[in-house]
Amino acid sequence: MTKNIGWATSDAKTPLAPYPFDRRETGPEDVLIDITHCGVCHSDVHQARDEFGGALATQWPCMPGHEVVGTVAAVGERVTTHAVGDRVGVGCLVFWGDESQRGVAEEQYQVPPAVFTYNGNDPVTGEVTLGGYSDQIVVHEHFVLKIPAALDSAAAAPLLCAGVTTWSPMEHWNVGPGSRVGVAGLGGLGHLAVQLAKARGAEEVVVLTTTPAKREQALALGADDVLDMSDDDAVQARSGSLDFVLSTIPTPFDMKPYVELVAHDGALVSVGMLEPTLPQALDFGAVSQKRVTLAGSLIGSIAETQQVLDFAAEHGISAETRVIPIDRVNEAFDEVVAKDVRFRYVIDSSTLRS
Amino acid sequence: MTKNIGWATSDAKTPLAPYPFDRRETGPEDVLIDITHCGVCHSDVHQARDEFGGALATQWPCMPGHEVVGTVAAVGERVTTHAVGDRVGVGCLVFWGDESQRGVAEEQYQVPPAVFTYNGNDPVTGEVTLGGYSDQIVVHEHFVLKIPAALDSAAAAPLLCAGVTTWSPMEHWNVGPGSRVGVAGLGGLGHLAVQLAKARGAEEVVVLTTTPAKREQALALGADDVLDMSDDDAVQARSGSLDFVLSTIPTPFDMKPYVELVAHDGALVSVGMLEPTLPQALDFGAVSQKRVTLAGSLIGSIAETQQVLDFAAEHGISAETRVIPIDRVNEAFDEVVAKDVRFRYVIDSSTLRS
Repeated sequence: MTKNIGWATSDAKTPLAPYPFDRRETGPEDVLIDITHCGVCHSDVHQARDEFGGALATQWPCMPGHEVVGTVAAVGERVTTHAVGDRVGVGCLVFWGDESQRGVAEEQYQVPPAVFTYNGNDPVTGEVTLGGYSDQIVVHEHFVLKIPAALDSAAAAPLLCAGVTTWSPMEHWNVGPGSRVGVAGLGGLGHLAVQLAKARGAEEVVVLTTTPAKREQALALGADDVLDMSDDDAVQARSGSLDFVLSTIPTPFDMKPYVELVAHDGALVSVGMLEPTLPQALDFGAVSQKRVTLAGSLIGSIAETQQVLDFAAEHGISAETRVIPIDRVNEAFDEVVAKDVRFRYVIDSSTLRS
Repeated sequence: MTKNIGWATSDAKTPLAPYPFDRRETGPEDVLIDITHCGVCHSDVHQARDEFGGALATQWPCMPGHEVVGTVAAVGERVTTHAVGDRVGVGCLVFWGDESQRGVAEEQYQVPPAVFTYNGNDPVTGEVTLGGYSDQIVVHEHFVLKIPAALDSAAAAPLLCAGVTTWSPMEHWNVGPGSRVGVAGLGGLGHLAVQLAKARGAEEVVVLTTTPAKREQALALGADDVLDMSDDDAVQARSGSLDFVLSTIPTPFDMKPYVELVAHDGALVSVGMLEPTLPQALDFGAVSQKRVTLAGSLIGSIAETQQVLDFAAEHGISAETRVIPIDRVNEAFDEVVAKDVRFRYVIDSSTLRS
């Protein structure tokens, strides 16, 4: 008889369904966590449907989930940073790429790559890692985050991926007082990015959207302005007015109107798109004329993940969430893809055990 | 009767031919220069053939030339920085975008844009500016460079555009000791970039080419290695090994193999391509995974142009040139386009008067 239960799928076409399995034993440096909540990330959908390809092609079974919050149930004998009963979180990473990386500052950028929470290779068993759509998880203590007391568990969960993914580039490109910031897309990542940029002291935060119906929500989140990117005149009127545009758009898009908004020496940084660019996605005349930086950024480090949790607690920032039972997860996937979601779905993990 | 003679064309299809005209009077802040040499730049060809489009669409007549070296023949009453008899140069710019820009650090990035040496609008006459394929030129003293005594006039000319175009991004991205540099393309820009990067103290300079026949020339210029970009295995073997890749490729290209070479937090900077990107030119998965910076850079400032002239004189760097009479310029255009050129054509401007 197996110890654990999760929801997984064994091919790209089949919806997620209950999947009994066994977590590995809690090793000397491991933390065993009773999961209470797990956010539903757009990447979960991509992975379950095997839409990434290349090095990220899906290994089966696929059990997504990398916005995990829970309570420490047991710790290994050498664990010093967490104790039974602590409220903790697990984000996108569960181990270093190899032992030599212990102590590096940016786990997410190493070669070989760090082990993902799902669709990675478990450093102990060698099997595919299974994520947080489950009742429990076993993770090396370095990759376990502390959830500050001020944060609600459901609202904290999305900070572990969506939050740190937008936080990390704001750290790297020094978004703060004086920065004029654009946030493209107002889904799970974007709605956190707006709040984080404002709390970091940005001079102005403008939401860039092709869904003007999101205007009210954007302003309620603290955005100073909302720009309809399908309105060419409106884009031209704001030409060169933003220092840092963070794109959370999850699929290839025409990047030219976004470059148009960027000021001299400004940056357009994508955190959503992992695919090849469209034809004529960029005009290098325009890029060169303003010496625009185009870049991509990948999740964030473990230190940055703790940082964004602490910052959110301090500034009263939380994800807008809708808590669902596990049996609504397939429906949630469809809604995430349909761009209908202006909040983050979070699984109530207690429903896995019922 | 007109005072001046240049070579120009009045439409995109007609070769350049003699064109008598009058330079404007030498104003109080102007310098009148007797031109001795003028480099032939790929941009000259694009402009004469009206291949840029958009804001850079050609105004007729088109008289190219922005790598101008000559001798001061007269100066206006308020000119303090140049004197009759001085050996001087003129690069890509001849005036600020407007008077309020006097004193800015980077003339080339202002709005409205600075006045180009050709195909701009003359700040005094309002007519199209005519470039250095001519016997004389009249330029505001701020935009007139001093040619160091150690530099040969013909060899100095290409520094005024090709040289500073590669120098400026090396300044901006701090290429120097410890930098591992790639130079893509070994034409007029690339062959200067290799020498400049080495003299700046780069740890390694690798020429990236699809023309393996250029190998010997690359090594002779000081390159440490030459990489055939059409050899996928060779590219893979150098994956992530360069901090700064400068692309001098003048047309849209598949940027993915170049991104492959860039290290974490490294940069791929284009100074040659001013067009929209090809389909799938970039893979944002790869870009994000290494937080690669993609950027473009536009010529250089007047201060940087003087800097690269002085640096070249100090380090014994010069362009490889082939001096031609003006009546060979149309032929030179065709050879530049055919990528046959491993040196810079420079017009002997005395042939304009004969």
